[in-house]
Amino acid sequence: MSEARTPAEIVRAFCGVWERGEFERFGEFLAADAMLHMLPLAPVHGSEAIREECRKLARLGTLSVRILNLAADGDLVLTERIDGLEQPDRAGELPVAGIFEVRDGKIVAWRDYFDLCQALAAFGLEAPI
Amino acid sequence: MSEARTPAEIVRAFCGVWERGEFERFGEFLAADAMLHMLPLAPVHGSEAIREECRKLARLGTLSVRILNLAADGDLVLTERIDGLEQPDRAGELPVAGIFEVRDGKIVAWRDYFDLCQALAAFGLEAPI
Repeated sequence: MSEARTPAEIVRAFCGVWERGEFERFGEFLAADAMLHMLPLAPVHGSEAIREECRKLARLGTLSVRILNLAADGDLVLTERIDGLEQPDRAGELPVAGIFEVRDGKIVAWRDYFDLCQALAAFGLEAPI
Repeated sequence: MSEARTPAEIVRAFCGVWERGEFERFGEFLAADAMLHMLPLAPVHGSEAIREECRKLARLGTLSVRILNLAADGDLVLTERIDGLEQPDRAGELPVAGIFEVRDGKIVAWRDYFDLCQALAAFGLEAPI
């Protein structure tokens, strides 16, 4: 935590923490007023709300976050990922492009681009509403 | 065409050519066996088929391709974009994350991440099938 990490390192470390369900460490990586926008859905504001959003998925099964590609430009980190969820009776994978903005060592914005129907199918969820 | 451009420059130039509907120039930027994968849909193989796919959208109205963010890592170029379509009676915008792989100065793979429902709504289209 004390060493100065690059934005790319911060994002990679955060994805590890998220994958392992270390929710108590989210505050190390997310600014208090961070924003998560899963583009097909409404934005989620604040690290606490983001943590809760991530917990929801983790409750359904074992999450995996595989970074296929990553490129950074200053404080901006663009990723291509496969997010997986293993449930007792099924396993699904979702292709995602995630964009992270880092400021002063913490993620302030996180935008995930994916198809909502693919996400619902991958994670065995019903459509919202 | 003769000067050596970086992968990022090639992608920016291609997006300009695409936006302006200069389809006759697609061959300068796309390898003959290039692949376009709009993630919610089946992949499109070959520069000719990609050109036809892009023409389809351009026939509907005036396209705009706005690159919000771009980062490159070697031959890989990750973008965050707003693709817009202006039609006589409506205008729509689609948030997209697009990933391009460049080899020997040409795009060989182009993967666009977006939500299909948002795309249909933005471009005034009916659902496929």
